[in-house]
Amino acid sequence: MSQISSFQDLKEHLQKVSSRKKMAVANAVDAHSLEAVMMAVESGIVEAYLVGDAATISNYDIIANASSDYVHIIDIPDVLEATLEAVRMVRSGECDILMKGLVNTDVILRAILDKEKGLMSPGNILTYNAALNIPGYHKLVFFSDPAVIPAPNLEQRKAIIRYGVAAAKKFGIAQPKVALLHATEKPNPKIVFMQDYVDILESWRNGEFGDCIIDGPMDAFLALDKERGAIKGVETPILGEADILIFPDFQSANCFYKGLVSFAGAGMAGLLQGTDKPVVLTSRSDDTESKFNSICMASVLA
Amino acid sequence: MSQISSFQDLKEHLQKVSSRKKMAVANAVDAHSLEAVMMAVESGIVEAYLVGDAATISNYDIIANASSDYVHIIDIPDVLEATLEAVRMVRSGECDILMKGLVNTDVILRAILDKEKGLMSPGNILTYNAALNIPGYHKLVFFSDPAVIPAPNLEQRKAIIRYGVAAAKKFGIAQPKVALLHATEKPNPKIVFMQDYVDILESWRNGEFGDCIIDGPMDAFLALDKERGAIKGVETPILGEADILIFPDFQSANCFYKGLVSFAGAGMAGLLQGTDKPVVLTSRSDDTESKFNSICMASVLA
Repeated sequence: MSQISSFQDLKEHLQKVSSRKKMAVANAVDAHSLEAVMMAVESGIVEAYLVGDAATISNYDIIANASSDYVHIIDIPDVLEATLEAVRMVRSGECDILMKGLVNTDVILRAILDKEKGLMSPGNILTYNAALNIPGYHKLVFFSDPAVIPAPNLEQRKAIIRYGVAAAKKFGIAQPKVALLHATEKPNPKIVFMQDYVDILESWRNGEFGDCIIDGPMDAFLALDKERGAIKGVETPILGEADILIFPDFQSANCFYKGLVSFAGAGMAGLLQGTDKPVVLTSRSDDTESKFNSICMASVLA
Repeated sequence: MSQISSFQDLKEHLQKVSSRKKMAVANAVDAHSLEAVMMAVESGIVEAYLVGDAATISNYDIIANASSDYVHIIDIPDVLEATLEAVRMVRSGECDILMKGLVNTDVILRAILDKEKGLMSPGNILTYNAALNIPGYHKLVFFSDPAVIPAPNLEQRKAIIRYGVAAAKKFGIAQPKVALLHATEKPNPKIVFMQDYVDILESWRNGEFGDCIIDGPMDAFLALDKERGAIKGVETPILGEADILIFPDFQSANCFYKGLVSFAGAGMAGLLQGTDKPVVLTSRSDDTESKFNSICMASVLA
């Protein structure tokens, strides 16, 4: 396959392969989720199973006027019950993707993490992988973790990288370039995550992460900006070509992407990682387009 | 005075007040520094004392062709000696501003931190305060610390806020709005800097920071983006109106600003803080314009 370099590419790729994924939406009773879901249904990307209060769901014009064979309503008015049923449908294989509707994040995470009935295989690590489509950058860039693990330990960082590399490969990037981000390219032994970076590079040299290029620590200029990065005179095979940004902690990832969404017109998509099936878990402040992009990202990874 | 809301405003303000500051440039032998210095000289903003190898300095066309009475060359070929002399000129009051030329950061920091001959008063904390001019944001926004203190402790955070508030007031902002940034507005007691934020808010309520508004934790949407922030339904007097961003650590501040410089066309200025006089200490990857902006920022704070 050719590389998916933008969210427009992503949508076109999915329309071309034309294999609808089945998506269960937990408590699909809010307009924002339903809009994004219906965009994905109408674009030929998913078949939607809307779990929640059927009266409320059908009351939305966007559902009432839908003539699609690819929208099903499962009438479960109770939020918790609806969430558990959506998780069950994905766990059982009836559906390929789980999406959060109007449910508190805590509630759906508890259902996902449940050892008997959830979506986590033993040993997996729950984290978040997101993709940014930045006008001015020549391709999509994946980044983690802006939302779930505040300060990853070494094992968690390694899992974050593994999930990121796997996602990038599904987007057609044969040998993803992974930048271990920091404020500078200078290692500082007083900073806790620096030793993790050293260990990660050693594991990478030993082949632990498969076919990819990992380098760091480096700053955002070296990772993403060929011109400003080159001025630094630092040798790196990544220089302005990063496919994956590994941030030191979730506040740095979070501030970074929100600045670019607000002021650089960047589009955003994101998924939980470490789950057996892709989970779309967007937040209130994400617009319909980012929810749609996230559904598309889930469809490629499903 | 009216509020300075952009770097264009800043330049015009300085040209209107028309009081040149005297600036000593430590080892002023590189083209990048000299270009920015000469922009400031020709704009009527500074009188420059270029300390370094006179033959090298005069060899640049930009200096050879300058007919300004406001450029002086002090011939000291040795880098360390030139640096010490520039620091001495500022310490003695002969100059108002120190600027780093082609000197390693370590070398000039050591000279600044020297207890006998440096620029630090006892009890002051060396940190970095920067300003961003983001197209799409309606005013300048100060932020700290992207460069000097990796993970500030409570005392350092308080100093960072005090310096930020003082700077904002010199830019005509009567009651600066200070956002304590994080990935989310939800406090998380497991995260180390959260208790600092709680303590800072209590000190602020007790009047410790003077006339300003401090709130947090909050994310970048709540601080800077009225529309996306409002969707969160969180009450804050800052909502999309932050004048000052206090980042949890220097990697989050650094990644944030570099993203906006690379992809949102943001302009940047920055100064060391905690020194007795303003110090312009820009880095290799800063362009001439950000060096010029930093000189302007120093002139307002001098």
